[in-house]
Amino acid sequence: MAHAPDPNVLRTRLRAARDAAGRSGVDAVLVTPGPDLRYLAGYHAVPLERLTCLLVPASGEPVLLVPRLEHAAAEASGAADVVHVVSHEENDDAFAMAAGLVRDALGGDPATVALTNTMPAMHVLRLRDAMSGAKQVLAGSVLGELRVRKDPAEVDALRRAAQAIDRVHSRMGEWLRPGRTEAEVGRDIADGIIAEGHRFVDFIIVASGPNGASPHHDTSDRVIERGDPVVVDIGGSMADGYCSDCTRTYVVGGDPDPEFVKYYAVLLDAQKRACEVVRPGVTPESVDAAARDVITEAGYGDYFFHRTGHGIGLETHEDPYIVSGNDRLLEPGMCFSIEPGIYLAGRHGARIEDIVTVTDDGGERLDTIDRELVVLD
Amino acid sequence: MAHAPDPNVLRTRLRAARDAAGRSGVDAVLVTPGPDLRYLAGYHAVPLERLTCLLVPASGEPVLLVPRLEHAAAEASGAADVVHVVSHEENDDAFAMAAGLVRDALGGDPATVALTNTMPAMHVLRLRDAMSGAKQVLAGSVLGELRVRKDPAEVDALRRAAQAIDRVHSRMGEWLRPGRTEAEVGRDIADGIIAEGHRFVDFIIVASGPNGASPHHDTSDRVIERGDPVVVDIGGSMADGYCSDCTRTYVVGGDPDPEFVKYYAVLLDAQKRACEVVRPGVTPESVDAAARDVITEAGYGDYFFHRTGHGIGLETHEDPYIVSGNDRLLEPGMCFSIEPGIYLAGRHGARIEDIVTVTDDGGERLDTIDRELVVLD
Repeated sequence: MAHAPDPNVLRTRLRAARDAAGRSGVDAVLVTPGPDLRYLAGYHAVPLERLTCLLVPASGEPVLLVPRLEHAAAEASGAADVVHVVSHEENDDAFAMAAGLVRDALGGDPATVALTNTMPAMHVLRLRDAMSGAKQVLAGSVLGELRVRKDPAEVDALRRAAQAIDRVHSRMGEWLRPGRTEAEVGRDIADGIIAEGHRFVDFIIVASGPNGASPHHDTSDRVIERGDPVVVDIGGSMADGYCSDCTRTYVVGGDPDPEFVKYYAVLLDAQKRACEVVRPGVTPESVDAAARDVITEAGYGDYFFHRTGHGIGLETHEDPYIVSGNDRLLEPGMCFSIEPGIYLAGRHGARIEDIVTVTDDGGERLDTIDRELVVLD
Repeated sequence: MAHAPDPNVLRTRLRAARDAAGRSGVDAVLVTPGPDLRYLAGYHAVPLERLTCLLVPASGEPVLLVPRLEHAAAEASGAADVVHVVSHEENDDAFAMAAGLVRDALGGDPATVALTNTMPAMHVLRLRDAMSGAKQVLAGSVLGELRVRKDPAEVDALRRAAQAIDRVHSRMGEWLRPGRTEAEVGRDIADGIIAEGHRFVDFIIVASGPNGASPHHDTSDRVIERGDPVVVDIGGSMADGYCSDCTRTYVVGGDPDPEFVKYYAVLLDAQKRACEVVRPGVTPESVDAAARDVITEAGYGDYFFHRTGHGIGLETHEDPYIVSGNDRLLEPGMCFSIEPGIYLAGRHGARIEDIVTVTDDGGERLDTIDRELVVLD
């Protein structure tokens, strides 16, 4: 689907990638299908075994190497407007071709190549062998600086994704009822994620009762009971590639455990507090601490055992990570989740998650649905 | 969702992986989230930046290293029934821990480690640095032999996936109409893929008119016209992880170009012929040739420029590839696509694709919907 940014935006990004490579001592950046390829060339290709690779040399012009049967798709994506597209046939050695194209652009063999962070090992090791003199490093350190600050169009794309997942949450009462299994509810949510405007379902966590104490629970055949707290953490990606990710914790009928009600109030305070401290110039670790301190002071510190959040964009998880030890200052355009949780093993758990963006003078929640405890009856 | 195979099946697979590693001169197999992890340990984890890694040493017991927040999910998946689970905290060096666990199991440093083919570069390079003396090779050569022959439960799983995607194709008349864009039709198909029983939408190609000449077209804003041939190639994955992949070419109202009708008949003959030659003991390249010869003899050989098919299972594309040069004999339980195509640049194209399995004495199509040209009116 034609959702590539303007060719001028892509050309600017490609030049910035080339310049960043030069500054980092990298002779070429090698980008297989995934978020970096979409960001730099507007090309959304499914990662498969045949080599598709954008080659961005530190000097010379970028080239996109694709299997012949994807040549037309690459052209249609708009990538051909910004890079030269070369195709390989089914029985060509695509890895040797990639090495040759880099050599041609540089006028010699590269000493260091940077690989897109998501490149699969089957390509990493074959490129290693095809460019046997080159040290392989991660492209994240080169491209991360470009992707971490979203431009206004990207923030709008993330806002549309957030609004779509908010609409799914607002329909939860249609699906989440006692007597149904988590898996049944999960299937309805999957339908809802597509129906409300996503192109792909990325993940669905429906964690009822004791399963709520497992932050990365999936769904299961457990039958949801009256009074259960249920953590629902869901996300998808839109046709333009930007992702949603939002968590709400529900109570399904009846009266929940009073301790759950008590710590939910603590968690809500913590999540709100972290959202409030977001602004340019503060550190991710101080945002993490803002949530963690509230929870620790209330005596639940040991039950919040993950970081407070992660960046989001063309990937569900990317820089900046909102975690102790990350002291790189927040800047306008950064977008990330704020999602503290409290988990009581064997009993239940809760998590509240919104995506926020750093504005010129503060922060803005892109997920805007209510954060108070919702009792579905 | 609890869809892991029986623990005894997993234990047998883990032993087979260990033995295959030993035979291949590999000291340990390292498996991050993806199809190999699901195959060996029954654990479906989303591939993210935190390290989740199954370590299968050639001697000693396998260990699953997971982030603490995924410990409960790993336990719930059933993986804990077959491997020891160790967790790392947010600020641990998980790569150093992985190296230590391998060293402990082997009683020394590994000389060669095999990496699951889909492991992302961000883990490949950090494991390279954490195990700096070890040569990295691909696990595909070690694990491929195990996964390439499906057991009867796996064939049944692929049959259920095929039936689900067949039901989506059988509903195409609800969605595919002149005046709609490919993207609008694609969105309805996405809904249908979930509604008919898949857990995830994996890909959707709706290639109308001239877009049909691009084998890996996605969808676009092109408005479908009366008389257009439309290639619809769609697939998803079920809750148990097994994938579907089926292509049909439709004509949307009116009268198509007579040349399209002519070559569709050639293509149908070619696809049927390739399906008919499938049996144990024949080579993939002879299956490819069976389809290709029919198309070449009719004068369209230059317009069929990709291989005839790919294996399918927990991945949409895996061994065996049905391609010239692949002379490894077919065996019962192998499952793959047969999908010849004819593509006339600037005009239109056609492809017909079924998944077939090799039986004891022949082949069986798992997709069973009609292959004749369907005119939707």
